[in-house]
Amino acid sequence: MFAHLLARRAAGAADASLKDVLETHAGIISFSGGLPDERAFDLAGLREIAARVAADPLTWQYAPTEGLWRLRQALGEHCREIGIEATPEQIVVTEGSQQGLDLCARLFVDPHDAVLIEAPGYLGALRAFENAEARLIPVSLDDDGLLVDRVAELARRHRPKLLYTASDFQNPTGATLALDRRRRLLELAAEHDFLILEDHAYRALRFEGEAVPPLKALSGGERVLYAGSFSKSLVPGVRVGWLAADAELIQRLALLKQGTDLAGNTFGQRFVLHWLKERGLNPPVDVYRRKRDRALAALSRHMPPGVRWNRPQGGFFLWVRLPPELDTRVLLAEAKGRGVSFVPGPSFGGLPQEFRFSYSQVPLDAIDEGVHRLATALTAVQAKVRKEPA
Amino acid sequence: MFAHLLARRAAGAADASLKDVLETHAGIISFSGGLPDERAFDLAGLREIAARVAADPLTWQYAPTEGLWRLRQALGEHCREIGIEATPEQIVVTEGSQQGLDLCARLFVDPHDAVLIEAPGYLGALRAFENAEARLIPVSLDDDGLLVDRVAELARRHRPKLLYTASDFQNPTGATLALDRRRRLLELAAEHDFLILEDHAYRALRFEGEAVPPLKALSGGERVLYAGSFSKSLVPGVRVGWLAADAELIQRLALLKQGTDLAGNTFGQRFVLHWLKERGLNPPVDVYRRKRDRALAALSRHMPPGVRWNRPQGGFFLWVRLPPELDTRVLLAEAKGRGVSFVPGPSFGGLPQEFRFSYSQVPLDAIDEGVHRLATALTAVQAKVRKEPA
Repeated sequence: MFAHLLARRAAGAADASLKDVLETHAGIISFSGGLPDERAFDLAGLREIAARVAADPLTWQYAPTEGLWRLRQALGEHCREIGIEATPEQIVVTEGSQQGLDLCARLFVDPHDAVLIEAPGYLGALRAFENAEARLIPVSLDDDGLLVDRVAELARRHRPKLLYTASDFQNPTGATLALDRRRRLLELAAEHDFLILEDHAYRALRFEGEAVPPLKALSGGERVLYAGSFSKSLVPGVRVGWLAADAELIQRLALLKQGTDLAGNTFGQRFVLHWLKERGLNPPVDVYRRKRDRALAALSRHMPPGVRWNRPQGGFFLWVRLPPELDTRVLLAEAKGRGVSFVPGPSFGGLPQEFRFSYSQVPLDAIDEGVHRLATALTAVQAKVRKEPA
Repeated sequence: MFAHLLARRAAGAADASLKDVLETHAGIISFSGGLPDERAFDLAGLREIAARVAADPLTWQYAPTEGLWRLRQALGEHCREIGIEATPEQIVVTEGSQQGLDLCARLFVDPHDAVLIEAPGYLGALRAFENAEARLIPVSLDDDGLLVDRVAELARRHRPKLLYTASDFQNPTGATLALDRRRRLLELAAEHDFLILEDHAYRALRFEGEAVPPLKALSGGERVLYAGSFSKSLVPGVRVGWLAADAELIQRLALLKQGTDLAGNTFGQRFVLHWLKERGLNPPVDVYRRKRDRALAALSRHMPPGVRWNRPQGGFFLWVRLPPELDTRVLLAEAKGRGVSFVPGPSFGGLPQEFRFSYSQVPLDAIDEGVHRLATALTAVQAKVRKEPA
């Protein structure tokens, strides 16, 4: 297969961990996938807007590389609602937020350039920076998000060009970056001259509590490239996201984009435009809140002592921590045998005793049974660990 | 705008020539754009299939990174019809063929690696390889496509990893690579150990003459990565294309794709799948043939002596050559003043006296008037050139 002709970035082992994460498993209660629940889609609404959009021949024609001007305007208005000032010139429409991350990686990262990333963090971001051959510097998190205090030391040592953070309901932990940490992070970015790539894909899925202003909306926000998405708040199947940044950077991002896909899909762009204008963004927040609550209740009910988890205020995920002698990769094997799955922490750069618990796509009524199976698997693994000689 | 933080690939002058090519100009008869004619879209059919597809909730969910399995199967069958054997595992669905070119560039090209490209050639390919920081080695064309005889010498000198060619109705010249040249090119690829990226975006738009087997279908085709597209043969607005290659290479392309867009748009993939199954690919070949014929007739009628052009057997473009003392960039300025436009050869890496004449999107009845204006502009420029001191 011509391995000797591969580029450096592609020559490593073909590890498909993200694929495993996305794949669903038949007959299993899966807390693995990070997908929205298609049963929560407003199918009647989707069909109606699709029919409207399909009736215009220009829906089927190419769109400009930067995205449709009217959508860029609408996204500017959408940004304004969350405190971000952005003219249409400061916005480029992307194929999901993932393309925004990729374009930013390619805009700034030369091989061996340092990039600070969250650990545990979003695998797609990791992959985008790996594709650009970045030197990845992990920064840990707690329940209030990125440990910003560690950033100063890491920035001094590694001189990063960029820091990546998913500020609201982070994938995989569900953590939201606290306001004081956001302010401090912006100061550090100015002090150490790096940019911040803020991934806000889960923003619209807040269940409770007050929204925290995005980094992009705070003082110093000109150093922030903001990636938004409709994959979680509307539907992922049209792949529409956007980047908001300095207008000159957007021009350069668009130039890179000419070579990556020439243009995004027009159907999806018109679809989102119509949806925003006619219906506004009304994500099924209650669906996911109920699932989170069911998950929290089931964890409390079934999990043995020593297991801890957080209480995210939105999004798709919560983060479970087992006692340190347990390895969630071993637990996963046991759990799959008992008809339940999740993604172990190390898949995201997290610790072996941690795992991601995704409640987003599991039917509400299956959550308790799934957690019960998980707890049974855990008890079985614990019994084995105890039997082993120290 | 943080220019000091830009990556090398993005630090050059922000030249937006491809954007200019795609942009339409109001009040002008434009032979510039390379777009299909939206008046030729089967709008009733598009609406019907869109409605069918929109009714299934999974249309709005994520697709696998490699594309929907059933679409990969259907694309394998589609390939078989043109002589290419490809299992679903040998196919990855891409966002238009452009993403296929980008993924290939990223899979094989390290900075400074040599890539042979057609000159004049497709700008999007140029951009994809520039984004990968390739060393681009131009190879000229004549009416039978790439001058394959030159490839041996260039391959010896530059040791390329890859050669890019649009084998049928090439953008910008409309030329089709002759069969004997295809065979010779495959021999050279084996001899000099490079791969061929075959861009077949215009294949289905053949007006006349016998189809030439794609490089991928000929002996030695295992060295060929084949990029197909529905943007010209169906509609561009859903951005569906594909790459066919060795299954292991496809796996690695899919890994890169995880970081670039995570997944393509599901709506478009299901849309194309249904279209192929229910209607088959029936591109409006007659529409474009009539336009080509009208363009050829108008050029014969209006152009002054010394102007030459080819007669492409399909696609969107023909290639016009003026006497060498004329510069088509000067002509363009004059032409725009007279309400007509085209793209000068140098925009594609061609000679100053050549230009691309795109008949695809101009209304049939405007073609003669457009060529008349162009000829008038040309006569005016010629008069000025003659007046200038030698």
